[in-house]
Amino acid sequence: MNDQIQPVILCGGAGSRLWPQSRGLRAKQFLPLAGTGSLFVQTLARVADERLFGAPLILCGKPHLAMVREQMGTTNSRLLVEPMPRNTAAAIALAVAGADPEALLLVMPSDHVIADVAAFHAAVTGGAALARRDWLVTFGITPDRPETGFGYIASGAPVGTQGFAVDRFVEKPPLADAEAMLAAGGYSWNAGIFLFRAGRMRDAMLTHCRAIFKAADKAVAAGKHDGDALHADAIEFAKAPSNSIDYAVMEKDDRVAVVPVAMGWSDLGSWHAVHSLAEADGAGNVVDDNVFLHDCRGNLVRSDGKRVALIGMENVAVIVDGDDILVMPLARSQDVRIAAQAREPPVD
Amino acid sequence: MNDQIQPVILCGGAGSRLWPQSRGLRAKQFLPLAGTGSLFVQTLARVADERLFGAPLILCGKPHLAMVREQMGTTNSRLLVEPMPRNTAAAIALAVAGADPEALLLVMPSDHVIADVAAFHAAVTGGAALARRDWLVTFGITPDRPETGFGYIASGAPVGTQGFAVDRFVEKPPLADAEAMLAAGGYSWNAGIFLFRAGRMRDAMLTHCRAIFKAADKAVAAGKHDGDALHADAIEFAKAPSNSIDYAVMEKDDRVAVVPVAMGWSDLGSWHAVHSLAEADGAGNVVDDNVFLHDCRGNLVRSDGKRVALIGMENVAVIVDGDDILVMPLARSQDVRIAAQAREPPVD
Repeated sequence: MNDQIQPVILCGGAGSRLWPQSRGLRAKQFLPLAGTGSLFVQTLARVADERLFGAPLILCGKPHLAMVREQMGTTNSRLLVEPMPRNTAAAIALAVAGADPEALLLVMPSDHVIADVAAFHAAVTGGAALARRDWLVTFGITPDRPETGFGYIASGAPVGTQGFAVDRFVEKPPLADAEAMLAAGGYSWNAGIFLFRAGRMRDAMLTHCRAIFKAADKAVAAGKHDGDALHADAIEFAKAPSNSIDYAVMEKDDRVAVVPVAMGWSDLGSWHAVHSLAEADGAGNVVDDNVFLHDCRGNLVRSDGKRVALIGMENVAVIVDGDDILVMPLARSQDVRIAAQAREPPVD
Repeated sequence: MNDQIQPVILCGGAGSRLWPQSRGLRAKQFLPLAGTGSLFVQTLARVADERLFGAPLILCGKPHLAMVREQMGTTNSRLLVEPMPRNTAAAIALAVAGADPEALLLVMPSDHVIADVAAFHAAVTGGAALARRDWLVTFGITPDRPETGFGYIASGAPVGTQGFAVDRFVEKPPLADAEAMLAAGGYSWNAGIFLFRAGRMRDAMLTHCRAIFKAADKAVAAGKHDGDALHADAIEFAKAPSNSIDYAVMEKDDRVAVVPVAMGWSDLGSWHAVHSLAEADGAGNVVDDNVFLHDCRGNLVRSDGKRVALIGMENVAVIVDGDDILVMPLARSQDVRIAAQAREPPVD
C-alpha cells in the first residue's frame, strides 16, 4: 500500500458569482483573487508536499484544458477531462473509476483559499487514518459567523483522534438556525473537501448512486488519451445523472466522519467574500492600483486596467473587465448571477 | 443701422464638471447631453433665424477650433480664437473690439439648453429695445427652486415693456437666502446671457475694466487671419486680467437691465442636472442602451459603448468614457472636479 494520498482537484467550475472577472475561459479558479497566484495554482501548491501527497489528478472541462495546462506548468499530474458538466458526484466517480481501490483520494475544489496550510495538512493526516478504516471523511470548517450561504454538518460521537461520526447534514439554514448552531457548537461548515479509500467510495456509489458510477466507469473505460490527458467518453458520461456528492452519497451513507479544522478557509463565493478576505486601507477600501477614491468607505474596486474614480461611495463593488462593468452594493453580491446570465452566453 | 442682432457665442469652456465625458478636445459644449445634437449645435440653431440674427461670431480656444469647424458645418459665421483662457470679460472685450459700435451683440454660452426657443426670441426682442437705449441687458431665468449654485439678480424699477433696472447682483446664496428670494419674487438667476450695443459696452469697459479692454483691443488689432478665423495676438491678450463680465462690468455699471424669461433653461452644470433634465424610465433611471439594471432607482448611466450592469443601486451616476469610469452619488455631482483634476493634465 502506498502511503501517499492522491489529490483529486475539481477544476470544472464556472465561478459565475464573481462575474465579470470570472467568466468563460478565465473561470474563478484561474484568477488571482486572494494571496499569490491563481486559486488553482495555490491549490496545487497546497498538495505539493511529496511526503504526504502523490501527483494530483486534475478534473476539468475541455474549454478549460488549455488554461489548466498553462497554469500547472511542469507540475507532475494527470488530467481527466469531463465531456460535459455533471456535478460533483459524477466527477468524483470518474476519479474513483480510474483509481487503485486501495488508494486514498483527497477530493478538493480548486477555487478556495486556505491560509493555514499546516492546519490543513494536519487535518488531512487525521482524516487519512479514518479513511483507512473505511470512513468516508469530510472536512468541516469551524464556523466564525452565522453564515447562511453554506451547508452545516452536525458532529456525533468522536472517532479517531480528530474526527466525529456525522450526525446529520443541514441544508443552507435560515439566519436564526445558523445563529443557534453557532451558539450550540458541534457544527461545522461543509467545504466540499473529501477523503476516502477509492474502493470504499466505489462500493458506496454502487449502493447509493449506481447509475452515476456505472456511467462514469464506462466513460473512463472508453476514454481517449491525448498526451497527459484522458478524455472521458462523452456518450457514456452523458448518461450520468447530475447530482452533488453530498446528496448522492455522503448524506445517505452510514459511515461518514467529519474532521473539524480551523485553517483560514474561504470559498471566495462572492465579491463580498473577496472584499472581506483582502487587506483593506484605513477606510475599509480594497482597490487596485490607479483607483481614485475621494470620501469613500468600505468599497471593493477591481479593474483590468481602466481607471476607476469613486466619489462619496460606501460599501459597493465596482468590477471592470473587458467591456463589462458591474456596480452594486457589496451586500447584494449574491445577485451577481442575475447580471451574469443577462450578459453571458451559456458556457459548456 | 442694421436691425439684425449679432450673436456672440462663447465656446471656450472646459466643462470639467461633466468629466469624464467632457474633457480635452471634447468639451461639454460639443457633446449631445440633452435634446438633439451637441449643445453647441443647438446654440447655433437657436440664433439661426435671419429675421432676428446676423451671422454669429464664435469665440473659442485654439484646441477646440477643429471641433468648432466640424460641428458648425456650413453655418455662415466668423471665428475668433482666444490665445489662452482669460475668463468672460476679456473674451467679450475681443468681440466688442472688433465690432461696429452700433451693432447689438447678444453674448451667450455655448453649453446651455433652452427648451422654449420662442420665449428666448421674444426676450431677445424685448432686450434689444433696451440695448438700443444703451442699457446693458442681462437675461434673468425665472427660478423654480431655491438653487444655491447660481447667482441671483434683484429686479428694480420696470424699464421698457419686459425689463427691470437691476437693483443688485447676489452671489451664489446659502439655502435660506435662496428660499427667501424664491418666496419674495422679483429675483432671477444670472444665466450669463447679455445683450448690448457694442459701443456702449466699449465705453463701460473703458470705465470699469480698462486694462482688459485695452489688451483685447490690441490683441484683435495685432491678430492674424487664418481662413475664416482671426487669431487674437497672444502677447497682447496675455496682458488682460482674468475676470468675469459680471464682476468686471455688470455689477459696477449703473445702467444695467434684466429681462426675466421662463424658457426651459438649464446650464447642465452637473451630472445631477443632466439626470434631472432627461426623460427617465418608471423607476427614475436615465441610462444608455445596453445598460443592465436590476432593482435600481434614480440612476444616471452614460457609457461610450462598454456594457454597464447595476444591481440594487439608487441615485448614483456611472459615467464611462475611454479608460475612465466615474461612480458617485448624483448628490455629490459638484465634487466631480476633484476626480477630474486628479485624472486630467491641465488643458489650455
